[in-house]
Amino acid sequence: MKWFIVLSLLAASVSCAQQPAGPSTETATQPTTHPRLVMTPTDVQKIRSQRHQAPLFTTSLDAAKAEVDAEIALGIDTPIPRDYSGGYTHARHKKNYAVAQKAGALYQILGEAKYASYVRDMLFQYADMYGDLPLHPKPRSYARGKIFWQCLNDANWLVFMSQAYDAIYETLSKEERDTLESKLFRPFADHISVASPQFFNRIHNHSTWGTAAVGMIGLVMNDDALIQRALYGLDLDNFSDERDNDGGFIRQAGQQAGFFANLDSAFSPDGYYTEGPYYQRYAMYPYLVFAQSLSNAGYAEQAFARSNGVLLKAVETLIQLSDSDGEFFPLNDAQKGMSLQANELVTAVDIAYQASGDPRLLDIAQTQQRVLLDGAGYAVARDIAASKTVPFGKSSVAVTDGRTGTEGGLAILRAGNDNLELVFKYTSQGLSHGHYDKLSYSLYEQGHEVLQDYGMARFVNLGQKGGGNYLPENSTWAKQSIAHNALVINETSHFQGQYDIGSKHHSQLDFFDVQNPAVQVVSAIESNAYPGSSMRRTVALLNLSGSTSPVILDVLEVQSESNNQYDLPFHFLGQVVETNIELAPASPTTTLGKAHGYQHLIVEARGDVKGTAPGNTKFTWLNKGRFYTLTSTAEPADELIFTRLGANDASYNLRRDPALILRRNDTSDTVFASIVEPHGSYSPINELAIDAQSNIKQLQVELNTTDYMVISLTTMDDQKTRLYLAKNQESGMAHQLQINSTQVAWTGPFHLVQKVTP
Amino acid sequence: MKWFIVLSLLAASVSCAQQPAGPSTETATQPTTHPRLVMTPTDVQKIRSQRHQAPLFTTSLDAAKAEVDAEIALGIDTPIPRDYSGGYTHARHKKNYAVAQKAGALYQILGEAKYASYVRDMLFQYADMYGDLPLHPKPRSYARGKIFWQCLNDANWLVFMSQAYDAIYETLSKEERDTLESKLFRPFADHISVASPQFFNRIHNHSTWGTAAVGMIGLVMNDDALIQRALYGLDLDNFSDERDNDGGFIRQAGQQAGFFANLDSAFSPDGYYTEGPYYQRYAMYPYLVFAQSLSNAGYAEQAFARSNGVLLKAVETLIQLSDSDGEFFPLNDAQKGMSLQANELVTAVDIAYQASGDPRLLDIAQTQQRVLLDGAGYAVARDIAASKTVPFGKSSVAVTDGRTGTEGGLAILRAGNDNLELVFKYTSQGLSHGHYDKLSYSLYEQGHEVLQDYGMARFVNLGQKGGGNYLPENSTWAKQSIAHNALVINETSHFQGQYDIGSKHHSQLDFFDVQNPAVQVVSAIESNAYPGSSMRRTVALLNLSGSTSPVILDVLEVQSESNNQYDLPFHFLGQVVETNIELAPASPTTTLGKAHGYQHLIVEARGDVKGTAPGNTKFTWLNKGRFYTLTSTAEPADELIFTRLGANDASYNLRRDPALILRRNDTSDTVFASIVEPHGSYSPINELAIDAQSNIKQLQVELNTTDYMVISLTTMDDQKTRLYLAKNQESGMAHQLQINSTQVAWTGPFHLVQKVTP
Repeated sequence: MKWFIVLSLLAASVSCAQQPAGPSTETATQPTTHPRLVMTPTDVQKIRSQRHQAPLFTTSLDAAKAEVDAEIALGIDTPIPRDYSGGYTHARHKKNYAVAQKAGALYQILGEAKYASYVRDMLFQYADMYGDLPLHPKPRSYARGKIFWQCLNDANWLVFMSQAYDAIYETLSKEERDTLESKLFRPFADHISVASPQFFNRIHNHSTWGTAAVGMIGLVMNDDALIQRALYGLDLDNFSDERDNDGGFIRQAGQQAGFFANLDSAFSPDGYYTEGPYYQRYAMYPYLVFAQSLSNAGYAEQAFARSNGVLLKAVETLIQLSDSDGEFFPLNDAQKGMSLQANELVTAVDIAYQASGDPRLLDIAQTQQRVLLDGAGYAVARDIAASKTVPFGKSSVAVTDGRTGTEGGLAILRAGNDNLELVFKYTSQGLSHGHYDKLSYSLYEQGHEVLQDYGMARFVNLGQKGGGNYLPENSTWAKQSIAHNALVINETSHFQGQYDIGSKHHSQLDFFDVQNPAVQVVSAIESNAYPGSSMRRTVALLNLSGSTSPVILDVLEVQSESNNQYDLPFHFLGQVVETNIELAPASPTTTLGKAHGYQHLIVEARGDVKGTAPGNTKFTWLNKGRFYTLTSTAEPADELIFTRLGANDASYNLRRDPALILRRNDTSDTVFASIVEPHGSYSPINELAIDAQSNIKQLQVELNTTDYMVISLTTMDDQKTRLYLAKNQESGMAHQLQINSTQVAWTGPFHLVQKVTP
Repeated sequence: MKWFIVLSLLAASVSCAQQPAGPSTETATQPTTHPRLVMTPTDVQKIRSQRHQAPLFTTSLDAAKAEVDAEIALGIDTPIPRDYSGGYTHARHKKNYAVAQKAGALYQILGEAKYASYVRDMLFQYADMYGDLPLHPKPRSYARGKIFWQCLNDANWLVFMSQAYDAIYETLSKEERDTLESKLFRPFADHISVASPQFFNRIHNHSTWGTAAVGMIGLVMNDDALIQRALYGLDLDNFSDERDNDGGFIRQAGQQAGFFANLDSAFSPDGYYTEGPYYQRYAMYPYLVFAQSLSNAGYAEQAFARSNGVLLKAVETLIQLSDSDGEFFPLNDAQKGMSLQANELVTAVDIAYQASGDPRLLDIAQTQQRVLLDGAGYAVARDIAASKTVPFGKSSVAVTDGRTGTEGGLAILRAGNDNLELVFKYTSQGLSHGHYDKLSYSLYEQGHEVLQDYGMARFVNLGQKGGGNYLPENSTWAKQSIAHNALVINETSHFQGQYDIGSKHHSQLDFFDVQNPAVQVVSAIESNAYPGSSMRRTVALLNLSGSTSPVILDVLEVQSESNNQYDLPFHFLGQVVETNIELAPASPTTTLGKAHGYQHLIVEARGDVKGTAPGNTKFTWLNKGRFYTLTSTAEPADELIFTRLGANDASYNLRRDPALILRRNDTSDTVFASIVEPHGSYSPINELAIDAQSNIKQLQVELNTTDYMVISLTTMDDQKTRLYLAKNQESGMAHQLQINSTQVAWTGPFHLVQKVTP
């Protein structure tokens, strides 16, 4: 609470603080008419006269009209704020700003006065209430709002209400504007900025919303001081000891602040947002609408041009980070099911299209089946109607993490007719929403999860589940290493599950090569998750003889100064079909451990590998009509452990999902080599089981030295494939190796030989 | 094995056994040309000349052509029989007869000789092999086949191969026909009939297949002895002590046998098949193709006309027994996912349409998107193209069980825009595939399971799961009462889970009234499942004030001579949202019991009701974006028990599904009243939770006497609804009752009063 005292002193003076020295002096071109944010008078004219050329625009307009008309009929309600995100007042105020923004757009496009009146009446109701509002009564946030329990939602409100106000600005008298601005908008903007610097002056999606909100209302009111505050932040001391509700740092020493500083540092040069796609989706909205508003206002320095055009790259990357159904890969804290269908993505795609003209974006817009009610949305709808669409064509891709692209990254391998997608993570921590999941991967086929990333333990806005906020199990389970397809040493999460340590490190890409669609490989190294141990994981999508789908080869090498217990989980989804190891039910059923997520795992069954010939464990499961087999190299003392999530969770905050854990005891240096093999199909309608058996006869680590590893895979038709991996290689280095009597020479980090002669 | 000895003596003599006295003497009209089974020369002519009028026929023809051409390219393989249903030889022979049947149809329609040659070559390969074949080497069946491990599959083979032979009959020389008939078809027909009377001479779907197979090959060969054998069975002694592999009786004293006897007794007068829709689907194929073959052959007595036209009623009923996605309700032994899309249903719908001309069947055919390659399929495709389709319109319906319709039955209540479907079961045992699930119900919304029926524990044709056959857990779990939404007394299944006892009894319909779509009610009584106890369950779909969807009111009254433990399970699917009772995790986790299915249930959490105001327990869950709340009247000593399936199942033959069990201890007469309430929605894309809370404020049993029960429901807007139930009432009886100062009079078994004044 201590900064509140400091800040109330600052509040009066800061709004006239000097503009920080920016790279160029910003001056507005002083537009004399409204609207001027996401829509311009020229846009309005074009839409009014040429709307018939853009049927998807009309569809979207009709939908908005139906929604707004229903709300107008219902009457305006601006209840005294009371609830967390699951409750009525939260939902009502949220709905208000969304509807007001749409009503403003309807007024501009249709010219019907009732929409302007509706917005005006709502704004005056807020203006009458706002002056007397104390802080929101719910105390949980590190930065409490007034309309909502956190400043973040207040900032959402202002981003949308700025647009509503902008749309009806010209319909109001000067007196009306003065009333709204003095009683509502200026104190509102001050509360989320000067009165809440711990919220406003960060490098974080919260501050992106906060700065965009202040900047946008500043643009509407033509208030350059507010615009400068938004673009460059408050000139304040640091808050380096403070944490937010998620445990993230408020601000670190020496950081710049403001919208531009956020834009410059939030994305890697490849447009990857370090918190992951779920939060990237959330952050894109204020980035893009404020960027477009600055563009429409004709500011000298444009947001779209900053950092080498990273905003538009970020839209491209965000689309790449979705599965074949358009759902985002749930990396770090992320609610599953969020997808390209979200409103934020309609905004992102439409604005990016207007800025870039990339016709592949029209392909995504077509799946969304709606557009923004502004110039950008019109352009998209018009060009779809004019058949300018080009297939987006998601591809295998690696993106860097970190502001300068030097903090690890993320790779997606894509292949096959069944849309096999493998997401391999070797990023930095991902700020306070990051998970302890170094070198983990998840696997998708036809948009279905095969090996899942759990996502977050939260039901956003569902009041009965912890007020719709993060649940305790997000920390105790979802963030932990064992919750991911990641190696866990001695039942302890990476970096001991400590954010301060994790934030200092990142994994390192070894190599990424997708030149040959039949042999796509990515490899990365993690040396800091466990002091004294290092891990290298190489995953490859391979086409094998006799297999109709590509298979995943997964080679995880660990080197350690000590003997350890290694757990390698596979979070499969579906029905167990069979294992080649006899399983014994755990009785009485116990949890797998005490902490680091292990306390949530019930042991269902165990199997001892013992002398399983030929040294491979095999596990087949069935999910959504498709078979999958995991074939793994095994040591005689290894165990298979089948677990079920849900121990110590009488509130049922967690899903009851299964996992298979490969456990190796009392070992230092070792290799886990596995194949994940999609095969065949089962239909309950024709009751045919096709190719229900694995096509892998044997998987072997044939050689493992300081410099090289050689893995061989033999299929049922006795065809052998060898993958040669060079460790510690430098780019373009030549290698030579002999196995049995066969000599092989190659250049680069790996080499694949099919149809090996014995 | 003992009947084998008897039968080998009988085998030689029986094929010339006298024809049993049928209701009329059957004489064939001696058709002189082929084809004469499912297709006639007239059909062929019409199809050849008018195919352009039926695009769906052409689509189906093209698909068959592609499949058969690929098989012709692959070459014919008739391997020596070896495997159970999961294995290669089983799948290959199955594929052979399916492809041969299609190749025959292609020959007739396209006139291309290569299709006739393909069928001929395959038949001769079988003829060469068949004579030397011993019984199939796999010993598991009570009636072993030669091509397959059971006679049932051999009969499938002959039903299809008869059609293939029929199609190419005219292309063969007399010598070729003699060879095929003497080396293949006659011994084949004899093996599944005279050599396997325990298979052939039953009232069971096995015998339906067996008799149809023998009858159809008899029709092709114009062999009246075979046709008579098929229609009227073998004249043999009973096999009343024998059981089949499912524990069912081979044959009971005094039963008739043969195709007609099966037809007469398999269905209730309403067309319900006592084993349930999954097996009805399976049995419909031989019933309909043989019926159509008899019709095409011009037999005096027609199968379609028998038993008041029950075959066509059965098709109608079968369609009614599917959910809004077209999947069959998985009553008794049934694999989930089987649907109107199955090949057998294409056959059923097309043949029924040809026989009845009911244009609602075209609606189903349109969803199937394919038709039979014969006259029936042509008629369907032509009439769809001619826009004769009428919506099928599934409705609330009650069907009787038992040959005379006096052995209980099944009711389906349907209501609401979200396709709420409740399936209430008060049938007889359902032969050897029946489950111990008296007065249970399952619930569906938009084709999703809300309260599930587990179905069967079997993965049909998936070799790795017990050879694709029934798994041990089908008996130890799936058939048991606790596996259903059915009351279980003292941890013992209905009829002690004993088939012999269960087969003697059936439940009794009390009343069924769906006149008013806003108040649909069904009630039934079970007096034999537990000696000394009787149960009456009344379920109603009600529209309530303030609820956007209908709710289910479920009133289960039990009367008993002794004090008992009662368990009422609700097999919900989805994520637990909340309960109004505090739950404690079970630790260490234990199974709920030792037998009758309880040994497979892991206790996850328990809650004690104690003094929960206002005497209601509440449980809300979330499934597929929809909320559901169960509100139940509770006694202070009641317990809520949350369970998870899967204990004592290290082979993972069972799904890990949840259930909530309401437990009441040490009680004799009592009432369980519950409301199951679908409400609101949750979307992970807009992250909005709409109407996430129950609309039920209170549920009360206000009165319970020998003659009457009164239940009241109060919604959140304080509107009270009362349901008056008259027990022991006779049709049209008038009732009068006073509660507080309110006097109510009505006629009939129930009376609903909305907006009760307090």
